[in-house]
Amino acid sequence: MNCKSRSSNTTIRRFPRYYRHLISLQKRGVYSVSSKDLSEQMGITPSQIRKDFAHFGGDGLHSGYEVGILKNKIANFLGLGKTYNMVIIGAGSLGRALMFNKSFEEEGFQVIGIFDTDADVIGEKIEAFKVEHLNCLSQFVKHQNIDIAVIAVPNIEAIEIIHKVISFGIKGIWNFSPVEVRVPNDVAIENTCLGDSLMILGYHLKKDRTQQSGKSPKV
Amino acid sequence: MNCKSRSSNTTIRRFPRYYRHLISLQKRGVYSVSSKDLSEQMGITPSQIRKDFAHFGGDGLHSGYEVGILKNKIANFLGLGKTYNMVIIGAGSLGRALMFNKSFEEEGFQVIGIFDTDADVIGEKIEAFKVEHLNCLSQFVKHQNIDIAVIAVPNIEAIEIIHKVISFGIKGIWNFSPVEVRVPNDVAIENTCLGDSLMILGYHLKKDRTQQSGKSPKV
Repeated sequence: MNCKSRSSNTTIRRFPRYYRHLISLQKRGVYSVSSKDLSEQMGITPSQIRKDFAHFGGDGLHSGYEVGILKNKIANFLGLGKTYNMVIIGAGSLGRALMFNKSFEEEGFQVIGIFDTDADVIGEKIEAFKVEHLNCLSQFVKHQNIDIAVIAVPNIEAIEIIHKVISFGIKGIWNFSPVEVRVPNDVAIENTCLGDSLMILGYHLKKDRTQQSGKSPKV
Repeated sequence: MNCKSRSSNTTIRRFPRYYRHLISLQKRGVYSVSSKDLSEQMGITPSQIRKDFAHFGGDGLHSGYEVGILKNKIANFLGLGKTYNMVIIGAGSLGRALMFNKSFEEEGFQVIGIFDTDADVIGEKIEAFKVEHLNCLSQFVKHQNIDIAVIAVPNIEAIEIIHKVISFGIKGIWNFSPVEVRVPNDVAIENTCLGDSLMILGYHLKKDRTQQSGKSPKV
């Protein structure tokens, strides 16, 4: 599977949003919801919502969906309810923040190891795990099934690390580094470069500043 | 500005990717690059690349772009080179990881304060800042120009906090919470729900497991 093309699949990207939104509706005691309600709440057109739900046989009724049933259907479509083993590569502040995030485990994504190359952190205990040297990963994968490697190193070394974990047979990569890496068709890669969100916010803020200064010059 | 519609603007989302990639080419000493090269390296079609670059008067020559000039044009298009002030709301592990990320500051996004509601962390010093109570933010914004509020709280309280920071006049929101909030047209919101990336990886991994088991059942 090639995630470069898959990542342009904007349909799939809406499903985690639906799933989260349905959980928040359930928490607020909402029992049923129509595509019109969802549209107003989420800023997605009703026809788009009905089209999306057709992916798992959603009937597209205007009258409403039962929140719990819809949530479960989406969970099933996404493959939630299964367990995925993850290793984190990079025991810096980001790697630790990801390790401490309990919501991942609630959805079945469990961290089973953390690796680094920095002698200062190797051997340190973080939660239930001791940081191991990245060189130990090849041995680790022989004994543990790893579905996802989280690349929480912020630099150019990430390219080499990604190729390495793929050579170990790991099929899912969550890449936080700023590098773009082409991966084989049977590997899924999710690129989450946090700085991109800031650049996009900056673009919108700049645009608004320019528009404002066009109307009434700043003094 | 309404980011719910803007966030579907997939063109804008490609620009930070181009920018990062051009930086990595520069680091490797690459002087010029064609749309064909970029296409192969980034998995975007050459015609899409030429269309994107037309946004800032890129000439679309097949012969090549000068990496440094192209990078600067994209930086200018995105509004980089300006300074944006940010406050982080939530001094947990994610808030701290974002605070420690030096690359944001390199692009002009500088943290000028960190806020929380948890008595255990208020007053704690993180880098150059003391964690302040969220109630102090209204006073803080009177003395400091804040462009972006980073919402690094993981729960439903985020809705109230987002509405609060908007009422203080903050026009940029970087939301890490799982809630979806509709914002006024003159506010930009970037939703970065980290769990979404895992769900999408899970979807692809599940699909591959199913395909594999369809071809040759696992034993």
